[in-house]
Amino acid sequence: MNKDLRPKARVAKGFRDVGPDEIRGLRTMLATIQRVYEDYGFEPVEQPFVEYTEALGKFLPDQDRPNAGVFSFQDDDEQWLSLRYDLTAPLARYVAENQQSLPTPYRSYRQGWVFRNEKPGPGRFRQFMQFDADTVGSASPAADAEVCMMAADTMEALGIPRGQYVMKFNSRKLLDGFTETYKIGEDVKLTWLRALDKLDRLGKDGVALLLGPGRKDESGDFTKGAGLSDSQIEASLAFATATTLDPQFVSGSASGEEGLRDLQAMETLFAASGYGKDRVRYDSSVVRGLEYYTGPVFECELLMETKDEDGRTVRFGSVGGGGRYDDLVARFTGQKVPATGFSIGVSRLYSALKLVGKAQESNVLSPVVVLVMDKDRQADYWRMVMALRGAGIRAEMYVGTAGMKAQMKYADKRSAPLVVIQGGDEKARGELQIKDLRLGSELAANIASREEYAAQRLAQFSVPESELVAAVKQALGN
Amino acid sequence: MNKDLRPKARVAKGFRDVGPDEIRGLRTMLATIQRVYEDYGFEPVEQPFVEYTEALGKFLPDQDRPNAGVFSFQDDDEQWLSLRYDLTAPLARYVAENQQSLPTPYRSYRQGWVFRNEKPGPGRFRQFMQFDADTVGSASPAADAEVCMMAADTMEALGIPRGQYVMKFNSRKLLDGFTETYKIGEDVKLTWLRALDKLDRLGKDGVALLLGPGRKDESGDFTKGAGLSDSQIEASLAFATATTLDPQFVSGSASGEEGLRDLQAMETLFAASGYGKDRVRYDSSVVRGLEYYTGPVFECELLMETKDEDGRTVRFGSVGGGGRYDDLVARFTGQKVPATGFSIGVSRLYSALKLVGKAQESNVLSPVVVLVMDKDRQADYWRMVMALRGAGIRAEMYVGTAGMKAQMKYADKRSAPLVVIQGGDEKARGELQIKDLRLGSELAANIASREEYAAQRLAQFSVPESELVAAVKQALGN
Repeated sequence: MNKDLRPKARVAKGFRDVGPDEIRGLRTMLATIQRVYEDYGFEPVEQPFVEYTEALGKFLPDQDRPNAGVFSFQDDDEQWLSLRYDLTAPLARYVAENQQSLPTPYRSYRQGWVFRNEKPGPGRFRQFMQFDADTVGSASPAADAEVCMMAADTMEALGIPRGQYVMKFNSRKLLDGFTETYKIGEDVKLTWLRALDKLDRLGKDGVALLLGPGRKDESGDFTKGAGLSDSQIEASLAFATATTLDPQFVSGSASGEEGLRDLQAMETLFAASGYGKDRVRYDSSVVRGLEYYTGPVFECELLMETKDEDGRTVRFGSVGGGGRYDDLVARFTGQKVPATGFSIGVSRLYSALKLVGKAQESNVLSPVVVLVMDKDRQADYWRMVMALRGAGIRAEMYVGTAGMKAQMKYADKRSAPLVVIQGGDEKARGELQIKDLRLGSELAANIASREEYAAQRLAQFSVPESELVAAVKQALGN
Repeated sequence: MNKDLRPKARVAKGFRDVGPDEIRGLRTMLATIQRVYEDYGFEPVEQPFVEYTEALGKFLPDQDRPNAGVFSFQDDDEQWLSLRYDLTAPLARYVAENQQSLPTPYRSYRQGWVFRNEKPGPGRFRQFMQFDADTVGSASPAADAEVCMMAADTMEALGIPRGQYVMKFNSRKLLDGFTETYKIGEDVKLTWLRALDKLDRLGKDGVALLLGPGRKDESGDFTKGAGLSDSQIEASLAFATATTLDPQFVSGSASGEEGLRDLQAMETLFAASGYGKDRVRYDSSVVRGLEYYTGPVFECELLMETKDEDGRTVRFGSVGGGGRYDDLVARFTGQKVPATGFSIGVSRLYSALKLVGKAQESNVLSPVVVLVMDKDRQADYWRMVMALRGAGIRAEMYVGTAGMKAQMKYADKRSAPLVVIQGGDEKARGELQIKDLRLGSELAANIASREEYAAQRLAQFSVPESELVAAVKQALGN
């Protein structure tokens, strides 16, 4: 084919390939989460990757087009389909479609890739994995509390020590109650929320500006403020930094008092179950961006330190969040179905496990490689491999067509711990050679280069053919 | 929201939801396949779900549009992207992109969902899962043989008894060689191949018609024939029903003789490794539809019987296939990279496991449900759940808001083996009730309905609070 007509071999922008270490580490991590969720009695269920755009609520109402943030395409009967952008919208569709056959409440979990048609950036991909658990059909704070305790248990099951994570909760109703009690108008509520959400980053003074007259950032850009009064700003900051539930912030607001009762009920259950404030606690700064939350909201934060993009030491931060969404199923059925859930950002959590040395990437030993010294004797080499495998040792015969040097290079690239070599001479003596590549490179690293040869010799030894398995076992140290 | 504006809750056409039994069964099955592939020294790698359409080779050359059989969409810089339709094309892109850092040969495996924009039908979905293993960078028949033995080992590891599966192989070169030796023209070669592929279904006479003058089927539709001579037809049928490799069919054809040598080398390795013809054997009827195979081709067939769509008893048939494809990486690089692989149709294999009773769907016991008899005592009930979980028993507290009757219905829908009940009276006596739902329905099934009440009583008993865990363990029979 003409060179100019050849396609370029490149992964699509915003997507990535995943290698063996991460796949194995993720597999272990996901199995652990599954185990905890199963112990709690949640059941697995999976929706497809593709849904009707309309069912995902991503159809632009005034135009005949889907929202640009989702990958969408039309099927043969011109219906718009989209790749799921989260796991909650497909679950809502599933529950609405299968309500009759599901238990109430319906507690389920699912893991899977989701897709966003957004500008990719460092660590921001267009395909990423979420792990969700949801309880649909219960308005009880016990359902919210259960999800929070399950998340805390999950962190510990993954090896994140107590004190290094915290499951923080708040309530949308409490936030609404505050705005009602302190007369913060509907028109500035979103600005108010967003300002409070920046407390960590901007501090009290910065947020006070955003709540009041507005703020100019370092680059000179001006962000319009919410225009609140000084007393409103003062109360907002006190509310947003409170560490305990305080009825005064919502007094007189029916919604606020309801939110307060919900969170108090959750706190009672936490305390009685031995989940102290080091694991699960009220945090007024938890806001959660999504519009659809209607009650308690949660965020799981990891407290160990890491570096941010600018090299500053920061807490690792959020690895998951969720909350109560009572309106998602109603989109389909017209009837409110109370629901609550928690979603783990799998990649972020996985990065965190790597940071604390708990990502089990290297739980599989590279295989022992049996070299092919004589092509006509492949069957003999294959039998050696079978003997090793039969003894539970990961092993392979070199299946390429190249010579000795390339085979050694192959074993090296594969990080093989040992290679097994049997040429004509060894065969004649009924022997074979075992070369310890790990020992070899260790020895070579510690001695002068002119002695390397001797070191390599040390790491290679002969054994009788019949002792292959025993000798390999011994060399592997098991 | 106005009822007419509400979206319909329906899964998209050709897609489906997957429930807990299948998820658990698949999880076990996939882990078994992984284990075998890992033992062989294959490494996991995953490509994303989305690739440039061009990289998948699904761009229509004369138009500015992707092939209609793949789901495609444009990203923000107008580049065409497609959902992967198999796992091989993305692997070829990956290898071409990362050749420098990969070992040669590169042996890898991957599992994942693939997508086809085709008309769905019974058992034919637009999203389905494949499990692939590939060796890239080796022209040796040992690589093909390895894949075949690995597939055979996989079937046995999954619990399909020897004799109930067979890994059949053939070679594209042998087929080409035959057409060369017997002077079957390029123009009818595809018709010839397709006709031979129907031997199972149409028998010798039907295929003879397709090879010769053409054939009218039961509905009266006429299929044009290949127009071969009687001697060509006779030889074709002999070739297609041969059970051993026979040099006469390809004599004088360089390509045919090469194909013969490849398969003989594979047979030598099989025989030496103890893989008899009951597990891996030459079968001249294996053709494989895909255009890109260039050498040996394989098909894994299950021999146990099942019913076809019309209720007739048939062999289960193919659960996977593959072969040698030496041109896929060359699309990108211009250099031929010899490769061979095997792909399992995960859903079909899973159906087969169900058929032989080896799908491990029910490997998780439904949870014990602790009822909430008094909402103010949720914390007490939660502690019971924690005690049960602490003893390794799957347990949950009812987290809904309904009364006793709905809670029992819930436990029933959840297939709970036991429920734990503690109302005020039991609490006062320091007791709780355990109701054995499995025993209850068993007893009720065996006696007259007027005695049901008594039966239900038999299946319910009181124990002291302190003996909850021991009593539940005993009732569960462990």
